[in-house]
Amino acid sequence: MYRFECDYAEGCHPLIMDALFKTNSEQHCGYGNDIYCEKARKAILDLCDCKTCAVHFLVGGTQTNTVVINHILRPHQGVLCANTGHITIHETGAIEATGHKVLPLDSDDGTITGKQVLDYCSAHFSDHDFEHIVQPGMVYISNPTENGTIYTKSQLSELKKACEQYSIPLFIDGARLGYALASPKNDLTLSDLCKLCDVFYIGGTKVGALFGEAVVITSTALQKDFRYIMKQHGAMLAKGRLLGVQFLTLFTDNLYTDISKNAVELALQIKQAFASVGCEFLFDSYTNQQFPILSDSQLEILSKKYSYSFWKKMPDGKNAVRFCTSWATPDTAVKELISDIKAL
Amino acid sequence: MYRFECDYAEGCHPLIMDALFKTNSEQHCGYGNDIYCEKARKAILDLCDCKTCAVHFLVGGTQTNTVVINHILRPHQGVLCANTGHITIHETGAIEATGHKVLPLDSDDGTITGKQVLDYCSAHFSDHDFEHIVQPGMVYISNPTENGTIYTKSQLSELKKACEQYSIPLFIDGARLGYALASPKNDLTLSDLCKLCDVFYIGGTKVGALFGEAVVITSTALQKDFRYIMKQHGAMLAKGRLLGVQFLTLFTDNLYTDISKNAVELALQIKQAFASVGCEFLFDSYTNQQFPILSDSQLEILSKKYSYSFWKKMPDGKNAVRFCTSWATPDTAVKELISDIKAL
Amino acid sequence: MYRFECDYAEGCHPLIMDALFKTNSEQHCGYGNDIYCEKARKAILDLCDCKTCAVHFLVGGTQTNTVVINHILRPHQGVLCANTGHITIHETGAIEATGHKVLPLDSDDGTITGKQVLDYCSAHFSDHDFEHIVQPGMVYISNPTENGTIYTKSQLSELKKACEQYSIPLFIDGARLGYALASPKNDLTLSDLCKLCDVFYIGGTKVGALFGEAVVITSTALQKDFRYIMKQHGAMLAKGRLLGVQFLTLFTDNLYTDISKNAVELALQIKQAFASVGCEFLFDSYTNQQFPILSDSQLEILSKKYSYSFWKKMPDGKNAVRFCTSWATPDTAVKELISDIKAL
Amino acid sequence: MYRFECDYAEGCHPLIMDALFKTNSEQHCGYGNDIYCEKARKAILDLCDCKTCAVHFLVGGTQTNTVVINHILRPHQGVLCANTGHITIHETGAIEATGHKVLPLDSDDGTITGKQVLDYCSAHFSDHDFEHIVQPGMVYISNPTENGTIYTKSQLSELKKACEQYSIPLFIDGARLGYALASPKNDLTLSDLCKLCDVFYIGGTKVGALFGEAVVITSTALQKDFRYIMKQHGAMLAKGRLLGVQFLTLFTDNLYTDISKNAVELALQIKQAFASVGCEFLFDSYTNQQFPILSDSQLEILSKKYSYSFWKKMPDGKNAVRFCTSWATPDTAVKELISDIKAL
Repeated sequence: MYRFECDYAEGCHPLIMDALFKTNSEQHCGYGNDIYCEKARKAILDLCDCKTCAVHFLVGGTQTNTVVINHILRPHQGVLCANTGHITIHETGAIEATGHKVLPLDSDDGTITGKQVLDYCSAHFSDHDFEHIVQPGMVYISNPTENGTIYTKSQLSELKKACEQYSIPLFIDGARLGYALASPKNDLTLSDLCKLCDVFYIGGTKVGALFGEAVVITSTALQKDFRYIMKQHGAMLAKGRLLGVQFLTLFTDNLYTDISKNAVELALQIKQAFASVGCEFLFDSYTNQQFPILSDSQLEILSKKYSYSFWKKMPDGKNAVRFCTSWATPDTAVKELISDIKAL
Repeated sequence: MYRFECDYAEGCHPLIMDALFKTNSEQHCGYGNDIYCEKARKAILDLCDCKTCAVHFLVGGTQTNTVVINHILRPHQGVLCANTGHITIHETGAIEATGHKVLPLDSDDGTITGKQVLDYCSAHFSDHDFEHIVQPGMVYISNPTENGTIYTKSQLSELKKACEQYSIPLFIDGARLGYALASPKNDLTLSDLCKLCDVFYIGGTKVGALFGEAVVITSTALQKDFRYIMKQHGAMLAKGRLLGVQFLTLFTDNLYTDISKNAVELALQIKQAFASVGCEFLFDSYTNQQFPILSDSQLEILSKKYSYSFWKKMPDGKNAVRFCTSWATPDTAVKELISDIKAL
Repeated sequence: MYRFECDYAEGCHPLIMDALFKTNSEQHCGYGNDIYCEKARKAILDLCDCKTCAVHFLVGGTQTNTVVINHILRPHQGVLCANTGHITIHETGAIEATGHKVLPLDSDDGTITGKQVLDYCSAHFSDHDFEHIVQPGMVYISNPTENGTIYTKSQLSELKKACEQYSIPLFIDGARLGYALASPKNDLTLSDLCKLCDVFYIGGTKVGALFGEAVVITSTALQKDFRYIMKQHGAMLAKGRLLGVQFLTLFTDNLYTDISKNAVELALQIKQAFASVGCEFLFDSYTNQQFPILSDSQLEILSKKYSYSFWKKMPDGKNAVRFCTSWATPDTAVKELISDIKAL
Repeated sequence: MYRFECDYAEGCHPLIMDALFKTNSEQHCGYGNDIYCEKARKAILDLCDCKTCAVHFLVGGTQTNTVVINHILRPHQGVLCANTGHITIHETGAIEATGHKVLPLDSDDGTITGKQVLDYCSAHFSDHDFEHIVQPGMVYISNPTENGTIYTKSQLSELKKACEQYSIPLFIDGARLGYALASPKNDLTLSDLCKLCDVFYIGGTKVGALFGEAVVITSTALQKDFRYIMKQHGAMLAKGRLLGVQFLTLFTDNLYTDISKNAVELALQIKQAFASVGCEFLFDSYTNQQFPILSDSQLEILSKKYSYSFWKKMPDGKNAVRFCTSWATPDTAVKELISDIKAL
């Protein structure tokens, strides 16, 4: 049985395990003020080509989304996001638990547009009773989205422009950011991200680390007191050096980029295999998550050797499912899967 | 200019003003422990034909919804309601501000069904990742709804049964309850409500009082420590006697029933007038709120003498608007309006 | 039995009742946008001699404290106050319920000093682990305090200066403000308050109104979006005109000042009577609350005709109690009490 | 420079690093449902000699305190704790951020007594205005305390009895639990803890793990839906297997006990050394934290080779400081320190 059900089934990349092992007995001060965090921050700033960003390391995605959003919003404000957004569906109301409404916008493929933001804000502020309604206070997107789709530079620029028109920050959940940047359809760089949003994070948990998300606050206006909010949410790891060591390794010698690229290439081979036997797809993804639509009998066959995530039942009775690759996926497993797909 | 835009444009019924005047110089203890609150509680229990209900008096609707919902839910739970529900649309995220997600269900006319609740709960608890999703912890409905529609005894029974199947409380926002009970289509009594929900409230603000909502907690399991939650939300009026005096007056000699009936009768006359000139209606309401659909020119004529609430633009360019009557609406104003409608 | 236990035992001043009666059948728009609120706002601005203040009307004290503090603080910030402050003792954790820690400072008489604020802030920001500790984000004082004591202009100026040094707002709870301004020891005016704090409120509930507190936001930086926060906390009264009518009456022909002065004069007569029979006092109050220390037998005698609040048992077994006058206290009741005190 | 400033300066015990390395490439399902978590749970239940406890693995201490307390309290309730408790001092208001007041009790050495709990609860429920005051809803203690002191079985039994009298749960923060159980003054077992409290946790971060705290919910009434609350607070680690592997290692072959004992023995040697040169101690600790009081010149000498935590300035100008040992402290470092202490 090989697990294609998610991209966090293994531990971490061997180079990271090695770095943790080598530094294990060193003594360091806590809470992210150690030398490895310092170096990892510098490595990220260099890659971002940005001198004024603030970089913080947190443990997981839900935690990071909560801390960032709680840090930014005033009490009467909510956060706009796609109706498929992780924060509105799969985080047990973590955002609401900090007092804020999530304001979902319709989305077919997981992305939202600048026009949607403009329309929403325009409607809000022109409502006679606008003070009786939650004020849109920021925009959350994920890139890649929960559906594997990504934003182009043009789409992101349009979103950023819409946000600026209403002076609301744009936040990018990059839990799988590596797989977006490694997509053949991508035209964004880390440096672009710094200019086209106010906060984003570079996911480690799903891209080679044991755990960890690196938050980059590009807007200097939003940098004040972020560490207080981290600590308040239990998001300031005592042994912060663990995050520093991991991100420093990921951003040394292009490791983050290389493992992301490999995962996406393997995913596209799987996509190609499904397409070759006539499968349709729920979403047209060019990242590490693929969403083929399979018949019950096809699924039954594949289930014997592989795990995947069930996504939804289609009107015609077929099943949309998710196959993920990751930094850890071996070529051999993919080859075997492809061979089995072609035999369907 | 006569205001038909809402049902809280005037002060209070003359009998209430008189009672406030007469008791004004009396000295009473505070916070709802006075003799008038005691008597008003007893009057309500008698009308409800219930000996075990707890009755509390609060100031306004948003406050009451917030206190009741915050009182009931555990942190990981949300509240199911129609997507038109006041709590999800028009209370500036008051529920989310206490940490809870509002879980909207589709609704055409403002009501929801037991089947919708069953389906939602069933889907939740059978989801593989159910712990990653807000748990449905209670159901909120309004009767009449924000659209003027009401629940029948059969519909309410079905909802209650669905709630019991998943052990979640049912809460009825009765900000305009008098107008529901006074509707010719109504078949529910206060005593029925006590059996068919866990908490409801009897609105005073929109039905004759200066302000005030009487919460009736029918479920003994939910009665503990409610006053703490009231106080925490600033919802325990220092001069609680003001609420006692008002509700005692409303529930003496059928005042609440009589003024509600009159308002509904006048509203139905207005409805009839609009229908007689060929108007359609956005919702088929038999309570004090009416939602005729008018052309721009019709609206322009009526605007000269009357105010109303704009509801929405229809696909054909016409306008759905709301005309409200209330306990305060004079026959003469309605007669004049009807005459003007018929001349459209 | 005459109640001296609190200053909210009666309804409202007859002139206010009269104004409510006269305006009762008028139709007005809701939520504080009516003509009476407008006029009351203007009357307050005139008295404050301030053109840039924002004025909002809320229903009660706990509600007002919660809304103002929640409006101002960021999530990681707390509010400094005397350890006797109403928000830390008697509001069922309303401030904590919005996510903020109350940071109590030692106080003998209910007041705190600028030096205490400076010391606290200095210690906080020089702590090695300051990000692990709640950040002081504003200062709350009450004037008069819960102990009847008041701030002089010099004391308040010192506090304001301390707050400015750390860029944190100063908020004055004026639930009994009239009785502070009417004290023979007072040297502050409403206009001074506008300059010496960032937000304060003028209490109505305890000074002649049925209910109501007028919030004056003097800092323009803190005025944005306050009405959203009000609505979110259920603190935007549907029939806002009730608050407008009451405050307009209070600020017409010096009513607020006159009734406050009368109450304080009566309280000082009571104080003088207790002193004349050798009583000591828990606090040296020159406002409407007096705190004599009485023996069990003295209390027993007075208890037969008067109610009061028990405050605390003294080490010598005597009892510190509170006698309040108010705008409603009749001369005759005070004369009789004094006569009974002198006979102790 | 050797760091004695805290007990989380190193990574993890070599056996844990080894186990992480060996299991690194295995594929497991996420969120704590893997086989290692299952085995670690069983190992803990066996040690606790309890079949009905629920065991959950979280990442850090502040997170764990927040999740447990938020899970247990209703909105109007607060948590009693020593005024030195970590939750009231050093977690940036994390508990208040979930809406709950921390209710500090006086403590000289970090412990609180059953009598203090009884007195507090008795005073609360007999207060005339008890509904205006936060209700005590649970008791939090830490063992060992932040001051290195521990609870005896008798003290803990008395606390538990007091809690039961008022039906409020008792929660033990065991961030350093190993060092308490390993103290020569300890007479408690894990099995005792299961009987004498409702929830406790076994700290991993400070006792051999990279990170991780194992929560044991002994009260079956408090077990429902805990994982929802974990997820809502971002406390459900995606790769839960990391926690399972670590705790399984800690509870195999007595590792947790052995490393704790060693750390305490070394700490007591350091204590003995300080005592031998006439030092007094701020707290009389028999665990891994020692609090000697040193002159400026003594500190200056030790500072050249060792780091420690500054605790407080004493009235006589001397300095109370903290020296910690841990599972990682080498004998050689302690020997050298002792030699340097004796030369003071």
